[in-house]
Amino acid sequence: MENNQIKNDAITRQEDDFAQWYTDICKKAELMDYSPVKGFIIYRPYGYAIWEQIQNYLDRRFKETGHENVYMPMVIQESLFKKEKEHVEGFAPETLIATIGGKEEIEDRLIIRPTSEVLFCDHYAKIIKSYRDLPKLYNQWCSVVRWEKTTRPFLRGAEFLWQEGHTMHETEEEARSEALRMLEIYDDLGRDVLAIPFSTGIKTDKEKFAGALETYSIEAVLPDGKALQSGTSHYFGNGFSKAFGIQFQTREGKLENPYQTSWGVSTRLIGATIMTHGDDNGLVLPPKVAPIQVIIIPVAANKPGVVPAAKEIAKRISNLGYRVKCDDSDKSAGWKFSEWEMKGVPLRVEVGPRDLEKEQVILAKRNTGEKIICPLSELDTKVKELLEVIHKEMYDKALKYLLEHTTEVHNLDELNAALEKGGYAKMMWCGDRACEDKIKELTSATARCLPFNQMPFGDTCPVCGKKATKVVLFARAY
Amino acid sequence: MENNQIKNDAITRQEDDFAQWYTDICKKAELMDYSPVKGFIIYRPYGYAIWEQIQNYLDRRFKETGHENVYMPMVIQESLFKKEKEHVEGFAPETLIATIGGKEEIEDRLIIRPTSEVLFCDHYAKIIKSYRDLPKLYNQWCSVVRWEKTTRPFLRGAEFLWQEGHTMHETEEEARSEALRMLEIYDDLGRDVLAIPFSTGIKTDKEKFAGALETYSIEAVLPDGKALQSGTSHYFGNGFSKAFGIQFQTREGKLENPYQTSWGVSTRLIGATIMTHGDDNGLVLPPKVAPIQVIIIPVAANKPGVVPAAKEIAKRISNLGYRVKCDDSDKSAGWKFSEWEMKGVPLRVEVGPRDLEKEQVILAKRNTGEKIICPLSELDTKVKELLEVIHKEMYDKALKYLLEHTTEVHNLDELNAALEKGGYAKMMWCGDRACEDKIKELTSATARCLPFNQMPFGDTCPVCGKKATKVVLFARAY
Repeated sequence: MENNQIKNDAITRQEDDFAQWYTDICKKAELMDYSPVKGFIIYRPYGYAIWEQIQNYLDRRFKETGHENVYMPMVIQESLFKKEKEHVEGFAPETLIATIGGKEEIEDRLIIRPTSEVLFCDHYAKIIKSYRDLPKLYNQWCSVVRWEKTTRPFLRGAEFLWQEGHTMHETEEEARSEALRMLEIYDDLGRDVLAIPFSTGIKTDKEKFAGALETYSIEAVLPDGKALQSGTSHYFGNGFSKAFGIQFQTREGKLENPYQTSWGVSTRLIGATIMTHGDDNGLVLPPKVAPIQVIIIPVAANKPGVVPAAKEIAKRISNLGYRVKCDDSDKSAGWKFSEWEMKGVPLRVEVGPRDLEKEQVILAKRNTGEKIICPLSELDTKVKELLEVIHKEMYDKALKYLLEHTTEVHNLDELNAALEKGGYAKMMWCGDRACEDKIKELTSATARCLPFNQMPFGDTCPVCGKKATKVVLFARAY
Repeated sequence: MENNQIKNDAITRQEDDFAQWYTDICKKAELMDYSPVKGFIIYRPYGYAIWEQIQNYLDRRFKETGHENVYMPMVIQESLFKKEKEHVEGFAPETLIATIGGKEEIEDRLIIRPTSEVLFCDHYAKIIKSYRDLPKLYNQWCSVVRWEKTTRPFLRGAEFLWQEGHTMHETEEEARSEALRMLEIYDDLGRDVLAIPFSTGIKTDKEKFAGALETYSIEAVLPDGKALQSGTSHYFGNGFSKAFGIQFQTREGKLENPYQTSWGVSTRLIGATIMTHGDDNGLVLPPKVAPIQVIIIPVAANKPGVVPAAKEIAKRISNLGYRVKCDDSDKSAGWKFSEWEMKGVPLRVEVGPRDLEKEQVILAKRNTGEKIICPLSELDTKVKELLEVIHKEMYDKALKYLLEHTTEVHNLDELNAALEKGGYAKMMWCGDRACEDKIKELTSATARCLPFNQMPFGDTCPVCGKKATKVVLFARAY
């Protein structure tokens, strides 16, 4: 096991400096590059292709559940933006504002969208008249801008790519179901595509989205022990509806304000994937999103027949519907092993003259380094099987880490110890904002969510000592 | 023939006011809506879905020809934007500029990208070192902003969706081939997907893109006689390469500047499609891009068995891989006929009790109004056949119009008459800018392109009387 792993000296080791390891991977695996404008990154082909796989999955799921795509303007007039008070207060400090158009000053300045709630609401006010027009289930794929001071590739940037769903419903109940349904799709994406076990739950009032009544989220615990909010789904009630004058005639002929949700995930998921699975040799990509799922490498490529055989095998695996590449460049096999390991390709097929004589190839799993001798006659089934196994192993490993880094705590000392160990400190909570604030003040940890799966393990809040009925996950977070 | 067409009074007739007809269609078929910011439109689901079909086709073609998708920032520093002189002069008057970020003034102001040549060049300067790194074949799907004074839905807007390809090559020859290859893909899109016969050719120096050595274009002639530039592909030589210091080591070990192309089409193609095919009853969509290809309408829906039969037929056609909808709403069949005609659905299936007794349905072609009785047993093959026939008929009709509106002219009187008739005035030209300017001054027509298919039909320039060897198409244009 793992004896084939060639040290990639160019990448900082995780244990030496996890943050630097992450940046090294992002750059050296050619996922991104910095642009001339601080905080704005370039999504390079290998990074963008991961996003395309995420998009393909989600877009299909959204459409299957009746959602339609739209595209709203990238700018919002400042006067319109200010219509919903809490919302504007949440975003105002980090907006990019355009003030000059065609060399002239713009009177009502244009905010480059940080999110599009107000644009959707303004539109919905025009097109929703009756219960017959509901639900409206719209989604948008676009980029948004948040003028952040501290940025990290994929995790926090001045501009990122995302999807934002915005829906309107006849009833509160239907809107709440929608918000939860979409969170479930995000959770499926984690489990079935990214091999990430997300924790799902509801945010505390302190942590919820500006203007939302309830925010649900998917949270990941990363190998440095920090939590990462990886997607959110909001139930708004009819607050925006009222602010924007959206009204519909009910089945009973009355006028009411519809109930709203919004939900989104972004290219931050690329960051979550890199961190969750990567190792000191580089990226380890889950098969479902890997731009290249199988890399074919000729060994002793100068020997007659090797390269043609490698190409033939590439074609054969491609015909099975997998994304495959044969690296027949003039580099050494060792260099190629190291390069494609660094780029995280889930499965490597080594095609060498001796193995070909025996009508076999060597398969190597990126996630474990394990090598398997495979008769050519069994290649098709073996590739399919191994890619499934790799996904499962990656998910299981991440789940094991998550469980090992979820610690039930009963007092502040245990809370501190759990946070030092990394991951979630799982705590009973009285529900008071004051206790939440105090934890942040003492430890810099924040409440990530009240998990849906509430299994009380005590009845006292460790901060104030009062009665506690809620289970909450605290963690230091990105 | 056409006896089933129900007058849609809400839409202005083409002959009464073509521009108003167009705006009516855009709004009433729910393709778009105006946003609160002048010139910025909302791409509504039915309009955006057409764009998604165009994207699907092009993205597949781009990838098949070796292109990779990337995403560059939406902002360009003013100092960077100014690096290529002609380019900045071409775009400066219509830029939107952000000057405030996070409540502070931005020193090097940020231009919201009108196009991304400079961003790609800045990136290429970092990642291209050797001939081994070439070609670079990148494409980007995004929106761009041009601060236009006069805007029209899809045709000219402050923000539009597009793709922009930016490629770098070892040799001039390879770059020129690339520019032409991509134009060919656009031409294929017209013929095979949009049912629009584009004219393809090269722009005059006066009309070419800011900074390009050569601009190739696809041009459409619309039913109001105006031409519409529908896509362009540029050969840049190595001018930007030099300005941005992009160098590569050649196979001979020398340092050279690579040769560049860029090419793009936008949501303007939706406008071209609406105008080319629409009629007084509304949209007529080519089957390949229609969000709904087949609409199933129950007739006498209150009769037992009709709605279930209609749904069954919808399912059957959906299983063939077509985009289909069964309208079982409580509106009258007549209202539905009119509604889905207005929305341009290529094929209607009428499912009524009498026909069901005879084990048949009625098929109605949107483009001609023709009705066909179809035994249920033949439905699958008939739907497939008719959708192909409809595409062909739509293309042929547009081609006929194009040929009838391409007039060879030998003097200024004929030129004027041809322009009055509408479409192209096809003219022999000496090649002098002065003559081109004069035509614009006299007639407001511009040179659309020198068609690739040059078939000289004279040897005298009608403006100056000098020797002319080039065939050029003039037209009044959007």
